[in-house]
Amino acid sequence: MSTIIALMTDFGYKDPYVSLMKSIIYKINPKVKIIDLTHDIPSFDIHYASYILLVSYKYFPRGTIFVVVVDPGVGGSRRVLIIKTRNYLFVGPDNGVLYPAANDDGIVDIINVVNDKFFIKPTSNTFHGRDIFAPVAAYLSLGIDYKIFGNSVTIEDITKYEINIHEFNESDRTICGRVIHIDKFGNIVLNIRYRQYNLYKLFTEARISINDRNFKVKVGKSFSSVGRGELVLYINSFNLMELGINMSNAAKTLGVKVGDSVCIELSS
Amino acid sequence: MSTIIALMTDFGYKDPYVSLMKSIIYKINPKVKIIDLTHDIPSFDIHYASYILLVSYKYFPRGTIFVVVVDPGVGGSRRVLIIKTRNYLFVGPDNGVLYPAANDDGIVDIINVVNDKFFIKPTSNTFHGRDIFAPVAAYLSLGIDYKIFGNSVTIEDITKYEINIHEFNESDRTICGRVIHIDKFGNIVLNIRYRQYNLYKLFTEARISINDRNFKVKVGKSFSSVGRGELVLYINSFNLMELGINMSNAAKTLGVKVGDSVCIELSS
Amino acid sequence: MSTIIALMTDFGYKDPYVSLMKSIIYKINPKVKIIDLTHDIPSFDIHYASYILLVSYKYFPRGTIFVVVVDPGVGGSRRVLIIKTRNYLFVGPDNGVLYPAANDDGIVDIINVVNDKFFIKPTSNTFHGRDIFAPVAAYLSLGIDYKIFGNSVTIEDITKYEINIHEFNESDRTICGRVIHIDKFGNIVLNIRYRQYNLYKLFTEARISINDRNFKVKVGKSFSSVGRGELVLYINSFNLMELGINMSNAAKTLGVKVGDSVCIELSS
Repeated sequence: MSTIIALMTDFGYKDPYVSLMKSIIYKINPKVKIIDLTHDIPSFDIHYASYILLVSYKYFPRGTIFVVVVDPGVGGSRRVLIIKTRNYLFVGPDNGVLYPAANDDGIVDIINVVNDKFFIKPTSNTFHGRDIFAPVAAYLSLGIDYKIFGNSVTIEDITKYEINIHEFNESDRTICGRVIHIDKFGNIVLNIRYRQYNLYKLFTEARISINDRNFKVKVGKSFSSVGRGELVLYINSFNLMELGINMSNAAKTLGVKVGDSVCIELSS
Repeated sequence: MSTIIALMTDFGYKDPYVSLMKSIIYKINPKVKIIDLTHDIPSFDIHYASYILLVSYKYFPRGTIFVVVVDPGVGGSRRVLIIKTRNYLFVGPDNGVLYPAANDDGIVDIINVVNDKFFIKPTSNTFHGRDIFAPVAAYLSLGIDYKIFGNSVTIEDITKYEINIHEFNESDRTICGRVIHIDKFGNIVLNIRYRQYNLYKLFTEARISINDRNFKVKVGKSFSSVGRGELVLYINSFNLMELGINMSNAAKTLGVKVGDSVCIELSS
Repeated sequence: MSTIIALMTDFGYKDPYVSLMKSIIYKINPKVKIIDLTHDIPSFDIHYASYILLVSYKYFPRGTIFVVVVDPGVGGSRRVLIIKTRNYLFVGPDNGVLYPAANDDGIVDIINVVNDKFFIKPTSNTFHGRDIFAPVAAYLSLGIDYKIFGNSVTIEDITKYEINIHEFNESDRTICGRVIHIDKFGNIVLNIRYRQYNLYKLFTEARISINDRNFKVKVGKSFSSVGRGELVLYINSFNLMELGINMSNAAKTLGVKVGDSVCIELSS
């Protein structure tokens, strides 16, 4: 089966951890395709991982199996979950990291994975990515029914990490939110969603308040809509409001970090 | 079709941008092979990207489709190009980044991509990697004629970034150029090409001038031709002159950066 | 053939070196699967590379071909080796880096690769990863007999890098060793092996001496067995003793580096 398994971890690229997950997966299903969502999640950062998963999952083909290993509780009592949603399967620890994406797609069923006949034996206490998550995902990719891996649990029963997204409506003029992510370019992503890409057709200017600083920026189509070094507000490719500087790093320039509060007042 | 799509971006590895390009590509052509050329291009660095592409492309199988997303002008008026060369297809923004490699292979035709039926809809203004470049490359890999994607434009009409390479002839004794790249090891690559690997058979010593510093180095077969910590001049694997230090970082030691002028006087 | 080629280098991700090895491999065998073991080996670090290979190799399917390019001696007189072991093939420079893993699996035969009809021509003096190791591995993956690549040499005749691992027995109370690796999370891996994961069932506390510092830690199942910020000793997923701090970086906190001496006194 040419299913895709999408891997996301906080393992980085220096250690062999990711490659060992892949070798286990290929041993079980040599025909599966593996895509690295990212392995540069900051260590233990469930917010970062769940944000990446939330904005990314829907671009993957139906049936993709997402495996998330950001798992500081490995070896303890946290459970291993398979979450079946309307279009995907999510495999990971019961620490909330899967919840925002799974909930967004629509949770159909949740399995507490206890059937250890699918695990690598002996099973280590510190690397369930290799010994549990990878083989479970690989067997799922072979078409094995997800229900066989354990017992069903309710949504109420699992750990939920909540990513709060505010919806922006065209009739709004002011809206407040938080910095939800800062990307590689230093673009500042806000937890404010607008379902169109054309905000710049409705508004020309925005007054921004972040951390007791107030400033005006243009509303543009993208970072390239303003002069080099200028700030601009635009709708990013995940339909979230984003502040960027053309050809520079907005987060460093403004000293902004994830979690900071932001208010925006738009004018045309 | 088992075509190869080679991806190069300045997206880094922390964000899901690269993986989303891959998921779009696999959705359209599950059988294509994807090779990551590199995604660690410094943000917006067209020189860096076009150098990597220039020295790398010819090692890929005939028919490989190169996709380059170093694209600070995304969302603006810059065009999307498919450049057909004698052996390859290049897809990327019209900002010059494709030009050195495409020109080196021999440009056959250039298409200004305007046929949006191949784009992801709605098309974002900030992530054409996912919404335009990836699907265009994926459809090309299915064998769709590149001419269907838009209208032909002339070489005169596109943006060219020029990488100037000087050819070194065996009869030369002195030659000047610039630092064109510094690699992971700190080896200093010059824009001076010698079409053989055996420079060390013709010359034993070189007098180097960089940034008002003058020093003598051995001419060797490779960095391992000199003692640990010694400087050496050799022909690298792309037939370019390179300065390295055995088991150490030449660029840091000499304080050299890309663009610095270099003159070389060879003696046997 | 759906053989796996596992690549490990110190090439990093900024340069195209790894991708050029892959393009050569796919040109020769489009059906092979490539897994990146890691390319973030510190430059020239044979210890680091041979440790990663030693702990990783056995998780790969039988018949996997490992290619290791940590090769400061490229272009000099160091030889290129194929080592056939009981279950795998190892390809790399004769500088010791392959030895710990190959020896652990059981060396069956060693070939000094001299048959240059399998090399890329002209063969560079600085990038045998592309011109020798990649094509040799690719032809091996096609099923070509490893003996055809050169002449057999004896174990006595090759360079050996030794990784000394101490075996811990249940009857021991004290044992000394060294720091063998520090992983991405800052967990401190020791060269002391215990063949079970259940050390925590035998002992509850350990007195540790590192660099003239003495302190007591709990013996746990994993880092998550102690409170946040607390030190703990456990058996890692490669059956090696490891010191970690729950949700933090033990190596930075303790100022420990690879090679440091460690003594452990266990009590129940």
